[in-house]
Amino acid sequence: MSTSQSPAFGPRTTVEQVEEGHTLAPKFDDQGLIACVTTAADTGELLMVGYMNAEALAKTIETGEAHYYSRSRKVLWHKGATSGLTQKVVEMRIDDDQDAVWLRVDVAGTGASCHVGFRSCFYRSIPIGQPVDQAVDALKFEESEKTFDPKKVYGDVPNPTQL
Amino acid sequence: MSTSQSPAFGPRTTVEQVEEGHTLAPKFDDQGLIACVTTAADTGELLMVGYMNAEALAKTIETGEAHYYSRSRKVLWHKGATSGLTQKVVEMRIDDDQDAVWLRVDVAGTGASCHVGFRSCFYRSIPIGQPVDQAVDALKFEESEKTFDPKKVYGDVPNPTQL
Repeated sequence: MSTSQSPAFGPRTTVEQVEEGHTLAPKFDDQGLIACVTTAADTGELLMVGYMNAEALAKTIETGEAHYYSRSRKVLWHKGATSGLTQKVVEMRIDDDQDAVWLRVDVAGTGASCHVGFRSCFYRSIPIGQPVDQAVDALKFEESEKTFDPKKVYGDVPNPTQL
Repeated sequence: MSTSQSPAFGPRTTVEQVEEGHTLAPKFDDQGLIACVTTAADTGELLMVGYMNAEALAKTIETGEAHYYSRSRKVLWHKGATSGLTQKVVEMRIDDDQDAVWLRVDVAGTGASCHVGFRSCFYRSIPIGQPVDQAVDALKFEESEKTFDPKKVYGDVPNPTQL
């Protein structure tokens, strides 16, 4: 199997077909993955960036619930299967060269999508307009409270963050 | 130089420090890149997904204008240098495990960010809730008109889309 195409999806024949056609012909990288950006359908807030393999992309299309590929656990990942915080897909889009997907979702339960407990994975801002060495130790928290206790929700499941 | 760290940024010492600290300690992949999601500051619309190397990340922080690493041209890419459609960063965030960045931007000129001429790179939707084989040839255009003519703006610059 080609690393960049999957039998379940269309072929990539020309730049024009990929960019301006009606055929879903995603380009998976050399790990067999495509990037997925997930935003809250109601607020537009960026919740997370994940990755999908061909199976996760197909499952998401078929079920209307977000599925990813867990790079740390190396398995198909039905988001919310452990935490209950499933993501119902309201709209799904693909980009010009078809190497990235955008999901607009409604999140079940507390509405959180971050394993640390925050609503969004992007809970810290980076100051801009100054030399990098002044920004390095100046991340600012933009969410003040966790929406759930990760220890209670995940128990002994290994933390997916890798150093 | 480590592939996962850069001297310009902080060290990645523990999961807790990476996730809950104030130190910018991005994790670059084995290509030296980090994913970057760029949304319109005013509407929340997803404009593009790009990639940054350490230099692009530093330049973005220092100048407040979006810089990426072009994977097709293999160079630092000051977005808008050719088209005039520069992206002024309103807010910059980083995610829990620090392997993805979020830029909220104001785009100059026509407000477009897609080399095909559309406002957003994500101008096509994928139908959901049906078998994949029924979705494959059913991409739907969500933007009806291009905001500029790519041939006029880019001339003979090679198209970045790769098959």
